[in-house]
Amino acid sequence: MPSEPTVPTVPTPDADVPATGPIPGFHAVVPAGGAGTRLWPLSRSGHPKFLHDLTGSGRTLLQATVDRLVPLAGPEGVLVVTGHRHAAAVAEQVPALLADAAGAERLLAEPSPRDSMAAIGLAAAVLLERHGDDVVLGSFAADQVIDGTAEFERAVREGVAGARAGYVVTVGIRATGPSTAFGYVRSGEPLGLPGAPTVHHALGFTEKPDEETAAAYLATGEYRWNAGMFIVRARVLLDHLAAQLPALAEGLRTLAAAWDGPDRATVLADVWPTLTKIAIDHAIAEPVAAAGGVAVVPGDFAWDDIGDFASLGGLLASPTLGDDALVLRVGAPDALVVPGGGRTVSVVGVPGVVVVDTADAVLVTTRAHAQSVKAAVDGWRERGRDDLL
Amino acid sequence: MPSEPTVPTVPTPDADVPATGPIPGFHAVVPAGGAGTRLWPLSRSGHPKFLHDLTGSGRTLLQATVDRLVPLAGPEGVLVVTGHRHAAAVAEQVPALLADAAGAERLLAEPSPRDSMAAIGLAAAVLLERHGDDVVLGSFAADQVIDGTAEFERAVREGVAGARAGYVVTVGIRATGPSTAFGYVRSGEPLGLPGAPTVHHALGFTEKPDEETAAAYLATGEYRWNAGMFIVRARVLLDHLAAQLPALAEGLRTLAAAWDGPDRATVLADVWPTLTKIAIDHAIAEPVAAAGGVAVVPGDFAWDDIGDFASLGGLLASPTLGDDALVLRVGAPDALVVPGGGRTVSVVGVPGVVVVDTADAVLVTTRAHAQSVKAAVDGWRERGRDDLL
Repeated sequence: MPSEPTVPTVPTPDADVPATGPIPGFHAVVPAGGAGTRLWPLSRSGHPKFLHDLTGSGRTLLQATVDRLVPLAGPEGVLVVTGHRHAAAVAEQVPALLADAAGAERLLAEPSPRDSMAAIGLAAAVLLERHGDDVVLGSFAADQVIDGTAEFERAVREGVAGARAGYVVTVGIRATGPSTAFGYVRSGEPLGLPGAPTVHHALGFTEKPDEETAAAYLATGEYRWNAGMFIVRARVLLDHLAAQLPALAEGLRTLAAAWDGPDRATVLADVWPTLTKIAIDHAIAEPVAAAGGVAVVPGDFAWDDIGDFASLGGLLASPTLGDDALVLRVGAPDALVVPGGGRTVSVVGVPGVVVVDTADAVLVTTRAHAQSVKAAVDGWRERGRDDLL
Repeated sequence: MPSEPTVPTVPTPDADVPATGPIPGFHAVVPAGGAGTRLWPLSRSGHPKFLHDLTGSGRTLLQATVDRLVPLAGPEGVLVVTGHRHAAAVAEQVPALLADAAGAERLLAEPSPRDSMAAIGLAAAVLLERHGDDVVLGSFAADQVIDGTAEFERAVREGVAGARAGYVVTVGIRATGPSTAFGYVRSGEPLGLPGAPTVHHALGFTEKPDEETAAAYLATGEYRWNAGMFIVRARVLLDHLAAQLPALAEGLRTLAAAWDGPDRATVLADVWPTLTKIAIDHAIAEPVAAAGGVAVVPGDFAWDDIGDFASLGGLLASPTLGDDALVLRVGAPDALVVPGGGRTVSVVGVPGVVVVDTADAVLVTTRAHAQSVKAAVDGWRERGRDDLL
């Protein structure tokens, strides 16, 4: 049996979180993983969605995520955890990760995917080694889109105050509708923390509900979307992990101790394959919430994880992602077209269609079938066309 | 006013048309023109539909048309009329056209398009020069598909008998439904010609009707589709033309007299641009029918002119035109896919969709919108992308 999670009782007497500018002691962690299978063939296993500019902003999702975090964590306060095979592409997109003033890399490459707890836990352990016990980390996935910077920053600043008080703080996104694509977090009483008036107790998490359940959630006014953003002191996170999954915590500690020294590769090769594969939601968020150790800070900004082409279409100002000169629509004004192969794409009278053209694969589907695109990826895998995946 | 068309009164005492083997004195003319705009981007102005294998048979429409006519006209009895820019491609597909035993080319290249009367009239005049007054020609467009060779041959053999009797004979195709995509020909009384028991008077032609009118036509039992096939003695055709459009007839006579000599290019340059642009239907078929000089021979074979992708889809045994290994369908079993660019094409849940992939253009439409594909061609032309047309 895991031990009872630690519940904060006495807030630590940290300095106030500043209302503007980088937050002292705060580090942003960006897990950059996930294949984005439902965005195939735009997103590929070798070039997943976070490496793409999916919004037409001129910045990839990863770059936009880092851009959003630098004002909160400072230019040397953002750390990315990604798979070994994507490390070069990440470094190319965010060259500043390769070294800060102290010469420490802020790009952590995993030898293989071992789920979010290992990724975020490794970052927490490395930050603890490098910066000591007071470090607070915020984890923000590399493939999410946010509109509303000021509100995002406010939520994170309050979240850091909640984290300094010992809580695992999650950001609860204001739901724009009873989505069945996201999990939900339920808020309880306000915590009354100094400098964090909107932070409440989190009563618990639920996985993706059906639509009726989702609507019932929203009717209570207590539920928000769980965006998987966590803000927590690195020490608190690792203490929770030590209580829940001691072997995993010990492995991460060993890795972190060796990370900035000559033995990193050896220790990684030994330890990494032994780490428990588990999502941070199951490893920490759910059991700690049940024990009262999780808080939720409301985030009233627009947010999406661009899970599929319907979601992508909803985010774009124009229904073309790419060069509109390559696209001709006849009787199909809402056709979502990604002209990614340099060819022209003509759509004649197919309402709701989605057309993605790439160098080796053309996909035609509809917004209504966007969730089924994974079946195409499965189909090509079955045919042995791993080159397409 | 044009003179009254000649109406045959005394059948010429020609020899019987043989029931098998090449028909003596019969020459097949294949007008190879038309851009096939509604089959864009498969069919392009520089590589129109008759140059494509649209049925997956391994033969292009032009080749299949020639193949179908050789048993009737003999290996040196088929002549193709095409535009100057397509002459090389036609010669490559049907090399036998370049010379027969007498050294005469059977590939007539037009300097510019001047509609079907000039094309077929030129062929008639050249055949008359080469083979004399008894020659009978049959004109069969290069981009039609026929299933039912024996019945086609029977119809043509009876048609030749009708032509020898002095008629302009058209083939009336048994309608499989009240199509609004084709014109119709109306049959009258049997002509009672020896060796041509099914040949009837043609009472007249109608252009593409609306569906209600088409259904009413079929209910009478008197109407058949007009496939634009004409069988007629070259002398009769040119005499009709001399009566209707004397300048055009004279121009064609001048061209034909010079065709096989050293002055062809000079005469072509002088005369061709002066020829009246008119369809053979309006120039000959309609006025001569009104005067009683047109006969119809029923053709009870399957026929299509592959006017658009819906028509193409109806002809194919499989919904892939090309390499099926490049196509993946999920919840879209009837998706018509032409993987013409070497890329994979995946369709997820878009019923009735049509996807055509080529090196520089991807088209997505539905069978129901097949007639609107021309609008895409117009759209690219307006944008100045003539390279795509």
